[in-house]
Amino acid sequence: MDRIESVKNQKVKQWRKLHTKKEREATGTFIIEGLHLVEEALKTKEMIKGLIVSEDITLPTHWNVDQLNIILVTKEVMKAISDTEAPQGIAAICEFQKQHAADSWEKVLFVDGVQDPGNLGTIIRTADAAGIDGVILGEGTVDHYNSKVIRSSQGSIFHLPIVNGNLMEWLQVYNEKQIPIYGTSLQNGVSYREASSTEQFCLIIGNEGSGVNRELLQKTTKNLYIPIYGGAESLNVGIATGILLYHLRG
Amino acid sequence: MDRIESVKNQKVKQWRKLHTKKEREATGTFIIEGLHLVEEALKTKEMIKGLIVSEDITLPTHWNVDQLNIILVTKEVMKAISDTEAPQGIAAICEFQKQHAADSWEKVLFVDGVQDPGNLGTIIRTADAAGIDGVILGEGTVDHYNSKVIRSSQGSIFHLPIVNGNLMEWLQVYNEKQIPIYGTSLQNGVSYREASSTEQFCLIIGNEGSGVNRELLQKTTKNLYIPIYGGAESLNVGIATGILLYHLRG
Repeated sequence: MDRIESVKNQKVKQWRKLHTKKEREATGTFIIEGLHLVEEALKTKEMIKGLIVSEDITLPTHWNVDQLNIILVTKEVMKAISDTEAPQGIAAICEFQKQHAADSWEKVLFVDGVQDPGNLGTIIRTADAAGIDGVILGEGTVDHYNSKVIRSSQGSIFHLPIVNGNLMEWLQVYNEKQIPIYGTSLQNGVSYREASSTEQFCLIIGNEGSGVNRELLQKTTKNLYIPIYGGAESLNVGIATGILLYHLRG
Repeated sequence: MDRIESVKNQKVKQWRKLHTKKEREATGTFIIEGLHLVEEALKTKEMIKGLIVSEDITLPTHWNVDQLNIILVTKEVMKAISDTEAPQGIAAICEFQKQHAADSWEKVLFVDGVQDPGNLGTIIRTADAAGIDGVILGEGTVDHYNSKVIRSSQGSIFHLPIVNGNLMEWLQVYNEKQIPIYGTSLQNGVSYREASSTEQFCLIIGNEGSGVNRELLQKTTKNLYIPIYGGAESLNVGIATGILLYHLRG
Protein backbone atom coordinates (compact mmCIF):
# COMPACT_ATOMS: atom_id res chain seq x y z
CA MET A 1 0.00 0.00 0.00
CA ASP A 2 1.41 3.38 -1.00
CA ARG A 3 1.57 6.15 1.53
CA ILE A 4 1.96 9.83 0.67
CA GLU A 5 2.95 12.44 3.23
CA SER A 6 3.95 15.46 1.21
CA VAL A 7 1.64 17.83 -0.63
CA LYS A 8 4.52 18.33 -3.04
CA ASN A 9 4.45 14.71 -4.12
CA GLN A 10 4.11 14.38 -7.89
CA LYS A 11 0.90 12.34 -7.64
CA VAL A 12 -0.72 14.91 -5.39
CA LYS A 13 0.05 17.61 -7.93
CA GLN A 14 -1.47 15.49 -10.67
CA TRP A 15 -4.65 14.78 -8.68
CA ARG A 16 -5.15 18.47 -7.98
CA LYS A 17 -5.00 19.15 -11.68
CA LEU A 18 -8.02 16.87 -12.15
CA HIS A 19 -10.17 19.79 -11.03
CA THR A 20 -9.53 21.20 -14.53
CA LYS A 21 -11.31 19.90 -17.60
CA LYS A 22 -8.08 20.00 -19.59
CA GLU A 23 -6.32 17.54 -17.30
CA ARG A 24 -9.35 15.28 -17.12
CA GLU A 25 -9.52 15.04 -20.87
CA ALA A 26 -5.77 14.52 -21.23
CA THR A 27 -5.82 11.60 -18.79
CA GLY A 28 -9.31 10.22 -19.26
CA THR A 29 -9.78 10.29 -15.50
CA PHE A 30 -11.64 12.34 -12.90
CA ILE A 31 -11.68 12.65 -9.14
CA ILE A 32 -14.57 12.10 -6.75
CA GLU A 33 -14.80 12.79 -3.04
CA GLY A 34 -16.84 11.68 -0.08
CA LEU A 35 -18.23 8.45 1.32
CA HIS A 36 -21.46 8.38 -0.65
CA LEU A 37 -19.93 9.03 -4.08
CA VAL A 38 -17.10 6.55 -3.55
CA GLU A 39 -19.61 3.94 -2.43
CA GLU A 40 -21.57 4.49 -5.65
CA ALA A 41 -18.37 4.23 -7.69
CA LEU A 42 -17.46 0.95 -5.95
CA LYS A 43 -20.55 -0.63 -7.49
CA THR A 44 -18.91 -0.20 -10.89
CA LYS A 45 -15.47 -1.22 -9.71
CA GLU A 46 -13.82 -1.24 -13.10
CA MET A 47 -14.03 2.55 -13.12
CA ILE A 48 -11.86 3.05 -10.03
CA LYS A 49 -8.16 3.46 -10.72
CA GLY A 50 -7.22 4.33 -7.15
CA LEU A 51 -8.76 4.86 -3.76
CA ILE A 52 -7.26 7.71 -1.73
CA VAL A 53 -7.80 7.32 2.01
CA SER A 54 -6.85 9.77 4.76
CA GLU A 55 -4.93 7.90 7.48
CA ASP A 56 -7.26 9.22 10.19
CA ILE A 57 -10.35 7.44 8.88
CA THR A 58 -11.48 3.83 8.80
CA LEU A 59 -13.16 2.42 5.72
CA PRO A 60 -16.70 1.13 6.26
CA THR A 61 -16.43 -2.60 7.02
CA HIS A 62 -19.03 -3.58 4.39
CA TRP A 63 -16.92 -2.12 1.59
CA ASN A 64 -15.23 -4.68 -0.59
CA VAL A 65 -11.99 -3.05 -1.68
CA ASP A 66 -10.07 -6.19 -2.67
CA GLN A 67 -7.91 -5.74 -5.73
CA LEU A 68 -8.24 -1.99 -5.49
CA ASN A 69 -5.19 0.24 -5.52
CA ILE A 70 -5.36 2.00 -2.14
CA ILE A 71 -3.19 5.00 -1.34
CA LEU A 72 -2.93 6.25 2.25
CA VAL A 73 -2.43 9.99 2.64
CA THR A 74 -2.10 12.47 5.50
CA LYS A 75 -4.94 14.86 6.37
CA GLU A 76 -2.92 17.69 4.80
CA VAL A 77 -2.60 15.83 1.51
CA MET A 78 -6.35 15.08 1.51
CA LYS A 79 -7.09 18.74 2.11
CA ALA A 80 -4.79 19.73 -0.73
CA ILE A 81 -6.52 17.54 -3.30
CA SER A 82 -10.07 18.31 -2.12
CA ASP A 83 -12.22 21.13 -3.45
CA THR A 84 -14.61 21.01 -0.51
CA GLU A 85 -14.16 22.91 2.75
CA ALA A 86 -14.52 19.87 4.98
CA PRO A 87 -13.10 16.83 3.16
CA GLN A 88 -14.58 13.52 4.33
CA GLY A 89 -11.21 11.79 4.14
CA ILE A 90 -11.93 9.63 1.13
CA ALA A 91 -11.53 10.21 -2.58
CA ALA A 92 -11.11 8.13 -5.71
CA ILE A 93 -9.58 8.52 -9.12
CA CYS A 94 -12.01 7.13 -11.69
CA GLU A 95 -11.80 6.42 -15.40
CA PHE A 96 -14.24 8.02 -17.82
CA GLN A 97 -17.25 5.90 -18.77
CA LYS A 98 -16.69 3.60 -21.72
CA GLN A 99 -17.98 4.77 -25.07
CA HIS A 100 -21.66 3.91 -25.32
CA ALA A 101 -23.73 3.09 -28.36
CA ALA A 102 -26.24 5.88 -27.96
CA ASP A 103 -28.20 4.77 -31.01
CA SER A 104 -29.98 1.88 -29.28
CA TRP A 105 -31.66 3.94 -26.58
CA GLU A 106 -35.43 4.32 -26.36
CA LYS A 107 -35.79 7.08 -23.79
CA VAL A 108 -33.19 9.75 -24.33
CA LEU A 109 -32.45 13.14 -22.81
CA PHE A 110 -30.64 15.72 -24.98
CA VAL A 111 -29.00 18.55 -23.03
CA ASP A 112 -28.34 21.66 -25.09
CA GLY A 113 -26.01 24.08 -23.35
CA VAL A 114 -26.89 23.75 -19.66
CA GLN A 115 -24.10 25.71 -17.95
CA ASP A 116 -24.66 25.55 -14.22
CA PRO A 117 -22.94 22.49 -12.69
CA GLY A 118 -25.60 22.15 -9.98
CA ASN A 119 -28.33 22.15 -12.62
CA LEU A 120 -26.61 19.53 -14.78
CA GLY A 121 -25.97 17.28 -11.77
CA THR A 122 -29.61 17.50 -10.68
CA ILE A 123 -30.74 16.84 -14.25
CA ILE A 124 -28.61 13.67 -14.44
CA ARG A 125 -29.99 12.52 -11.07
CA THR A 126 -33.52 13.16 -12.31
CA ALA A 127 -32.94 11.34 -15.62
CA ASP A 128 -31.60 8.39 -13.62
CA ALA A 129 -34.66 8.38 -11.32
CA ALA A 130 -36.99 8.57 -14.33
CA GLY A 131 -35.33 5.52 -15.87
CA ILE A 132 -33.97 7.28 -18.94
CA ASP A 133 -31.65 5.06 -21.05
CA GLY A 134 -29.00 7.70 -21.59
CA VAL A 135 -28.11 11.36 -21.78
CA ILE A 136 -26.48 13.16 -24.71
CA LEU A 137 -24.71 16.40 -23.87
CA GLY A 138 -24.44 18.92 -26.69
CA GLU A 139 -21.84 21.62 -27.16
CA GLY A 140 -21.80 24.40 -24.58
CA THR A 141 -22.92 22.10 -21.79
CA VAL A 142 -20.74 22.05 -18.68
CA ASP A 143 -18.37 19.05 -18.40
CA HIS A 144 -20.16 16.24 -16.55
CA TYR A 145 -16.91 15.18 -14.84
CA ASN A 146 -16.78 18.58 -13.11
CA SER A 147 -16.80 17.86 -9.36
CA LYS A 148 -19.86 20.04 -8.67
CA VAL A 149 -21.82 18.19 -11.33
CA ILE A 150 -20.82 14.86 -9.79
CA ARG A 151 -21.80 16.01 -6.30
CA SER A 152 -25.21 17.28 -7.39
CA SER A 153 -25.80 14.07 -9.35
CA GLN A 154 -25.48 12.22 -5.99
CA GLY A 155 -23.76 9.35 -7.77
CA SER A 156 -26.20 9.05 -10.68
CA ILE A 157 -23.23 9.78 -12.92
CA PHE A 158 -22.32 6.11 -12.31
CA HIS A 159 -25.80 4.77 -13.07
CA LEU A 160 -26.58 5.72 -16.63
CA PRO A 161 -24.61 6.31 -19.82
CA ILE A 162 -23.72 9.91 -20.63
CA VAL A 163 -22.08 10.89 -23.91
CA ASN A 164 -21.00 14.09 -25.60
CA GLY A 165 -22.27 14.59 -29.10
CA ASN A 166 -23.60 16.78 -31.86
CA LEU A 167 -27.30 17.13 -31.03
CA MET A 168 -28.31 17.93 -34.60
CA GLU A 169 -26.75 14.68 -35.79
CA TRP A 170 -28.34 12.66 -33.00
CA LEU A 171 -31.67 14.27 -33.68
CA GLN A 172 -31.45 12.96 -37.25
CA VAL A 173 -30.54 9.48 -36.01
CA TYR A 174 -33.62 9.35 -33.78
CA ASN A 175 -35.79 10.96 -36.42
CA GLU A 176 -34.95 8.12 -38.79
CA LYS A 177 -35.89 5.62 -36.11
CA GLN A 178 -39.28 7.38 -35.94
CA ILE A 179 -38.97 8.06 -32.25
CA PRO A 180 -40.84 11.25 -31.28
CA ILE A 181 -38.53 14.13 -30.43
CA TYR A 182 -39.80 16.83 -28.09
CA GLY A 183 -38.14 20.21 -27.88
CA THR A 184 -38.91 22.63 -25.06
CA SER A 185 -39.77 26.24 -25.61
CA LEU A 186 -41.30 29.07 -23.59
CA GLN A 187 -42.88 30.87 -26.53
CA ASN A 188 -44.22 28.53 -29.16
CA GLY A 189 -45.28 24.96 -29.03
CA VAL A 190 -48.04 23.06 -27.27
CA SER A 191 -48.69 22.39 -23.61
CA TYR A 192 -46.76 19.33 -22.48
CA ARG A 193 -50.04 17.71 -21.46
CA GLU A 194 -50.84 17.32 -25.16
CA ALA A 195 -47.89 14.95 -25.61
CA SER A 196 -48.97 11.48 -24.59
CA SER A 197 -46.66 9.16 -22.74
CA THR A 198 -44.81 6.63 -24.87
CA GLU A 199 -42.26 3.85 -24.59
CA GLN A 200 -39.88 5.76 -26.81
CA PHE A 201 -39.07 9.46 -26.84
CA CYS A 202 -36.30 12.03 -26.93
CA LEU A 203 -36.60 15.19 -24.85
CA ILE A 204 -34.39 18.21 -25.51
CA ILE A 205 -33.78 20.68 -22.70
CA GLY A 206 -31.84 23.90 -23.12
CA ASN A 207 -29.67 26.61 -21.67
CA GLU A 208 -30.82 28.41 -18.49
CA GLY A 209 -31.15 31.75 -20.26
CA SER A 210 -31.58 31.17 -23.96
CA GLY A 211 -33.32 27.79 -24.02
CA VAL A 212 -32.95 25.22 -26.80
CA ASN A 213 -31.16 26.25 -30.00
CA ARG A 214 -33.64 27.39 -32.66
CA GLU A 215 -32.26 25.14 -35.38
CA LEU A 216 -32.91 22.13 -33.18
CA LEU A 217 -36.45 23.31 -32.40
CA GLN A 218 -37.21 23.41 -36.12
CA LYS A 219 -36.41 19.72 -36.55
CA THR A 220 -38.39 18.29 -33.64
CA THR A 221 -41.67 16.36 -33.72
CA LYS A 222 -43.28 18.86 -31.34
CA ASN A 223 -42.12 21.60 -29.03
CA LEU A 224 -43.56 21.58 -25.54
CA TYR A 225 -44.02 24.25 -22.90
CA ILE A 226 -45.03 24.01 -19.27
CA PRO A 227 -47.80 26.50 -18.46
CA ILE A 228 -46.92 29.17 -15.90
CA TYR A 229 -49.94 29.99 -13.74
CA GLY A 230 -48.42 32.53 -11.35
CA GLY A 231 -45.99 35.43 -11.51
CA ALA A 232 -42.78 33.48 -12.13
CA GLU A 233 -41.17 34.07 -15.53
CA SER A 234 -40.04 30.50 -15.93
CA LEU A 235 -39.19 27.29 -14.13
CA ASN A 236 -35.69 26.19 -13.19
CA VAL A 237 -34.39 23.91 -15.98
CA GLY A 238 -34.00 20.96 -13.59
CA ILE A 239 -37.59 21.31 -12.37
CA ALA A 240 -38.84 21.51 -15.96
CA THR A 241 -36.86 18.38 -16.83
CA GLY A 242 -38.44 16.50 -13.91
CA ILE A 243 -41.99 17.48 -14.84
CA LEU A 244 -41.49 16.60 -18.51
CA LEU A 245 -39.63 13.31 -18.05
CA TYR A 246 -42.18 11.99 -15.56
CA HIS A 247 -45.01 13.10 -17.81
CA LEU A 248 -43.54 11.56 -20.97
CA ARG A 249 -42.59 8.23 -19.47
CA GLY A 250 -46.13 7.89 -18.05
CA MET B 1 -30.97 62.30 -1.82
CA ASP B 2 -28.64 60.81 0.77
CA ARG B 3 -25.11 59.89 -0.18
CA ILE B 4 -22.88 57.54 1.80
CA GLU B 5 -19.14 57.35 1.25
CA SER B 6 -17.83 55.51 4.26
CA VAL B 7 -18.13 51.81 4.97
CA LYS B 8 -18.09 52.81 8.64
CA ASN B 9 -21.31 54.75 8.32
CA GLN B 10 -23.90 53.58 10.83
CA LYS B 11 -26.43 52.70 8.14
CA VAL B 12 -23.91 50.58 6.27
CA LYS B 13 -23.21 48.62 9.43
CA GLN B 14 -26.92 48.08 9.94
CA TRP B 15 -27.49 46.91 6.36
CA ARG B 16 -24.67 44.39 6.65
CA LYS B 17 -26.31 42.94 9.71
CA LEU B 18 -29.39 42.14 7.59
CA HIS B 19 -27.48 39.10 6.36
CA THR B 20 -28.31 37.58 9.76
CA LYS B 21 -31.73 36.22 10.62
CA LYS B 22 -31.59 37.85 14.05
CA GLU B 23 -31.29 41.37 12.65
CA ARG B 24 -33.96 40.70 10.02
CA GLU B 25 -36.42 39.62 12.67
CA ALA B 26 -35.53 42.48 14.99
CA THR B 27 -36.19 45.06 12.26
CA GLY B 28 -38.81 43.32 10.12
CA THR B 29 -36.70 44.11 7.07
CA PHE B 30 -34.42 42.25 4.64
CA ILE B 31 -31.99 43.17 1.91
CA ILE B 32 -32.08 42.19 -1.76
CA GLU B 33 -29.48 42.72 -4.47
CA GLY B 34 -29.31 42.86 -8.21
CA LEU B 35 -31.29 44.40 -11.05
CA HIS B 36 -33.76 41.57 -11.52
CA LEU B 37 -34.74 41.18 -7.87
CA VAL B 38 -35.09 44.93 -7.32
CA GLU B 39 -37.24 45.17 -10.43
CA GLU B 40 -39.52 42.47 -9.04
CA ALA B 41 -39.68 44.26 -5.69
CA LEU B 42 -40.61 47.53 -7.43
CA LYS B 43 -43.83 45.89 -8.59
CA THR B 44 -44.90 45.75 -4.94
CA LYS B 45 -43.60 49.19 -4.09
CA GLU B 46 -44.98 49.36 -0.59
CA MET B 47 -42.39 46.77 0.44
CA ILE B 48 -39.36 48.92 -0.44
CA LYS B 49 -38.06 51.06 2.40
CA GLY B 50 -34.98 52.24 0.55
CA LEU B 51 -33.18 51.83 -2.74
CA ILE B 52 -29.38 51.68 -2.50
CA VAL B 53 -27.65 52.67 -5.74
CA SER B 54 -23.93 52.60 -6.49
CA GLU B 55 -22.88 55.96 -7.96
CA ASP B 56 -21.25 54.29 -10.97
CA ILE B 57 -24.48 52.86 -12.35
CA THR B 58 -27.52 54.35 -14.05
CA LEU B 59 -31.00 53.13 -13.17
CA PRO B 60 -32.97 51.62 -16.07
CA THR B 61 -35.05 54.42 -17.59
CA HIS B 62 -38.28 52.43 -17.46
CA TRP B 63 -38.11 52.16 -13.68
CA ASN B 64 -40.55 54.33 -11.82
CA VAL B 65 -38.79 55.25 -8.58
CA ASP B 66 -40.85 58.32 -7.66
CA GLN B 67 -41.49 58.64 -3.97
CA LEU B 68 -38.84 56.06 -3.18
CA ASN B 69 -36.11 56.77 -0.70
CA ILE B 70 -32.92 56.55 -2.80
CA ILE B 71 -29.49 56.40 -1.21
CA LEU B 72 -26.38 56.87 -3.35
CA VAL B 73 -23.30 54.94 -2.23
CA THR B 74 -19.74 54.45 -3.41
CA LYS B 75 -18.61 51.18 -5.03
CA GLU B 76 -16.79 50.33 -1.81
CA VAL B 77 -19.91 50.75 0.28
CA MET B 78 -21.89 48.59 -2.16
CA LYS B 79 -19.25 45.91 -1.95
CA ALA B 80 -19.34 46.03 1.83
CA ILE B 81 -23.08 45.43 2.07
CA SER B 82 -23.22 42.80 -0.69
CA ASP B 83 -22.82 39.08 -0.11
CA THR B 84 -22.10 38.36 -3.77
CA GLU B 85 -18.67 38.43 -5.36
CA ALA B 86 -19.62 40.78 -8.16
CA PRO B 87 -22.31 43.19 -6.88
CA GLN B 88 -24.53 44.63 -9.61
CA GLY B 89 -24.55 48.05 -8.00
CA ILE B 90 -28.13 48.03 -6.82
CA ALA B 91 -29.77 46.81 -3.65
CA ALA B 92 -32.93 47.49 -1.68
CA ILE B 93 -34.09 47.30 1.89
CA CYS B 94 -37.52 45.70 1.96
CA GLU B 95 -40.15 45.16 4.62
CA PHE B 96 -41.41 41.71 5.47
CA GLN B 97 -44.62 40.64 3.74
CA LYS B 98 -47.78 41.62 5.59
CA GLN B 99 -49.43 38.93 7.66
CA HIS B 100 -51.59 36.82 5.41
CA ALA B 101 -54.78 34.97 6.20
CA ALA B 102 -53.54 31.52 5.25
CA ASP B 103 -56.90 29.94 6.01
CA SER B 104 -58.59 31.05 2.81
CA TRP B 105 -56.19 29.36 0.41
CA GLU B 106 -57.24 26.52 -1.88
CA LYS B 107 -53.91 25.28 -3.18
CA VAL B 108 -51.34 25.25 -0.42
CA LEU B 109 -47.76 24.06 -0.08
CA PHE B 110 -46.54 23.02 3.39
CA VAL B 111 -42.75 22.96 3.75
CA ASP B 112 -41.52 20.81 6.64
CA GLY B 113 -37.86 21.45 7.44
CA VAL B 114 -36.24 22.14 4.06
CA GLN B 115 -32.79 23.37 5.04
CA ASP B 116 -30.90 24.21 1.87
CA PRO B 117 -31.50 27.85 0.84
CA GLY B 118 -31.15 27.01 -2.87
CA ASN B 119 -33.76 24.29 -2.53
CA LEU B 120 -36.23 26.52 -0.68
CA GLY B 121 -35.80 29.33 -3.22
CA THR B 122 -36.39 26.95 -6.13
CA ILE B 123 -39.41 25.49 -4.33
CA ILE B 124 -40.94 28.96 -3.88
CA ARG B 125 -40.28 29.76 -7.57
CA THR B 126 -41.94 26.47 -8.55
CA ALA B 127 -44.95 27.05 -6.28
CA ASP B 128 -45.33 30.49 -7.88
CA ALA B 129 -45.15 29.03 -11.41
CA ALA B 130 -47.69 26.35 -10.50
CA GLY B 131 -50.13 29.01 -9.29
CA ILE B 132 -50.19 27.91 -5.66
CA ASP B 133 -52.11 30.33 -3.37
CA GLY B 134 -49.55 30.35 -0.60
CA VAL B 135 -46.73 28.58 1.18
CA ILE B 136 -46.58 27.68 4.89
CA LEU B 137 -43.10 27.12 6.28
CA GLY B 138 -42.89 24.84 9.31
CA GLU B 139 -40.25 24.81 12.02
CA GLY B 140 -36.75 23.84 10.97
CA THR B 141 -37.16 25.36 7.52
CA VAL B 142 -34.49 27.86 6.48
CA ASP B 143 -35.55 31.54 6.76
CA HIS B 144 -37.11 32.64 3.47
CA TYR B 145 -35.59 36.12 3.80
CA ASN B 146 -32.10 34.58 3.62
CA SER B 147 -30.42 36.16 0.59
CA LYS B 148 -29.65 32.81 -1.08
CA VAL B 149 -33.30 31.80 -0.82
CA ILE B 150 -34.35 35.09 -2.37
CA ARG B 151 -31.83 34.74 -5.21
CA SER B 152 -32.91 31.18 -6.04
CA SER B 153 -36.55 32.23 -5.90
CA GLN B 154 -35.76 34.66 -8.76
CA GLY B 155 -38.17 37.17 -7.28
CA SER B 156 -41.03 34.77 -6.65
CA ILE B 157 -40.71 35.70 -2.99
CA PHE B 158 -42.59 38.88 -4.03
CA HIS B 159 -45.34 37.06 -5.92
CA LEU B 160 -47.07 34.83 -3.44
CA PRO B 161 -47.80 34.88 0.28
CA ILE B 162 -45.39 32.96 2.50
CA VAL B 163 -45.99 32.49 6.21
CA ASN B 164 -44.31 30.69 9.08
CA GLY B 165 -46.53 28.41 11.09
CA ASN B 166 -47.13 25.22 13.01
CA LEU B 167 -47.83 22.64 10.32
CA MET B 168 -49.77 20.34 12.61
CA GLU B 169 -52.18 23.16 13.44
CA TRP B 170 -52.56 24.18 9.81
CA LEU B 171 -53.11 20.58 8.83
CA GLN B 172 -56.06 20.49 11.21
CA VAL B 173 -57.45 23.73 9.79
CA TYR B 174 -57.39 22.34 6.26
CA ASN B 175 -58.66 18.97 7.40
CA GLU B 176 -61.75 20.66 8.82
CA LYS B 177 -62.29 22.41 5.51
CA GLN B 178 -62.26 18.95 3.91
CA ILE B 179 -59.46 19.85 1.54
CA PRO B 180 -57.37 16.78 0.67
CA ILE B 181 -53.92 16.83 2.27
CA TYR B 182 -51.11 14.92 0.59
CA GLY B 183 -47.98 13.98 2.44
CA THR B 184 -44.89 12.75 0.62
CA SER B 185 -42.98 9.66 1.61
CA LEU B 186 -40.38 7.39 0.05
CA GLN B 187 -41.46 4.23 1.85
CA ASN B 188 -45.20 3.99 2.30
CA GLY B 189 -48.06 5.56 0.49
CA VAL B 190 -49.40 5.36 -3.02
CA SER B 191 -47.96 6.43 -6.35
CA TYR B 192 -48.70 10.10 -6.97
CA ARG B 193 -50.51 9.13 -10.16
CA GLU B 194 -53.29 7.70 -8.01
CA ALA B 195 -54.09 11.16 -6.64
CA SER B 196 -56.35 12.93 -9.10
CA SER B 197 -56.01 16.62 -9.79
CA THR B 198 -58.36 18.88 -7.87
CA GLU B 199 -59.16 22.55 -7.39
CA GLN B 200 -58.20 22.34 -3.75
CA PHE B 201 -55.31 20.53 -2.14
CA CYS B 202 -52.46 20.81 0.37
CA LEU B 203 -49.12 19.21 -0.41
CA ILE B 204 -46.52 18.63 2.32
CA ILE B 205 -42.87 18.32 1.33
CA GLY B 206 -40.12 17.51 3.75
CA ASN B 207 -36.50 17.75 4.78
CA GLU B 208 -33.79 16.75 2.27
CA GLY B 209 -32.59 13.85 4.40
CA SER B 210 -35.37 12.78 6.72
CA GLY B 211 -38.45 13.73 4.71
CA VAL B 212 -41.78 14.77 6.24
CA ASN B 213 -42.25 14.41 9.99
CA ARG B 214 -44.01 11.12 10.85
CA GLU B 215 -46.66 12.70 13.02
CA LEU B 216 -47.75 14.83 10.09
CA LEU B 217 -47.80 11.82 7.76
CA GLN B 218 -50.24 10.09 10.11
CA LYS B 219 -52.79 12.88 9.79
CA THR B 220 -52.85 13.28 6.01
CA THR B 221 -55.52 12.18 3.55
CA LYS B 222 -52.97 10.17 1.56
CA ASN B 223 -49.21 9.94 1.35
CA LEU B 224 -47.70 9.99 -2.11
CA TYR B 225 -44.44 8.75 -3.53
CA ILE B 226 -42.83 9.30 -6.92
CA PRO B 227 -41.65 6.00 -8.42
CA ILE B 228 -37.90 5.70 -8.97
CA TYR B 229 -37.20 3.68 -12.14
CA GLY B 230 -33.41 3.84 -12.25
CA GLY B 231 -30.51 3.66 -9.81
CA ALA B 232 -31.03 7.00 -8.01
CA GLU B 233 -32.00 6.72 -4.36
CA SER B 234 -34.34 9.69 -4.47
CA LEU B 235 -35.21 12.88 -6.28
CA ASN B 236 -34.09 16.34 -5.23
CA VAL B 237 -36.85 17.88 -3.07
CA GLY B 238 -37.36 20.76 -5.52
CA ILE B 239 -37.77 18.37 -8.45
CA ALA B 240 -40.25 16.26 -6.46
CA THR B 241 -42.20 19.41 -5.59
CA GLY B 242 -42.41 20.39 -9.26
CA ILE B 243 -43.63 16.97 -10.38
CA LEU B 244 -46.26 16.77 -7.61
CA LEU B 245 -47.59 20.33 -7.86
CA TYR B 246 -48.01 20.13 -11.62
CA HIS B 247 -49.65 16.75 -11.30
CA LEU B 248 -52.07 17.79 -8.53
CA ARG B 249 -53.16 21.05 -10.11
CA GLY B 250 -53.89 19.21 -13.37
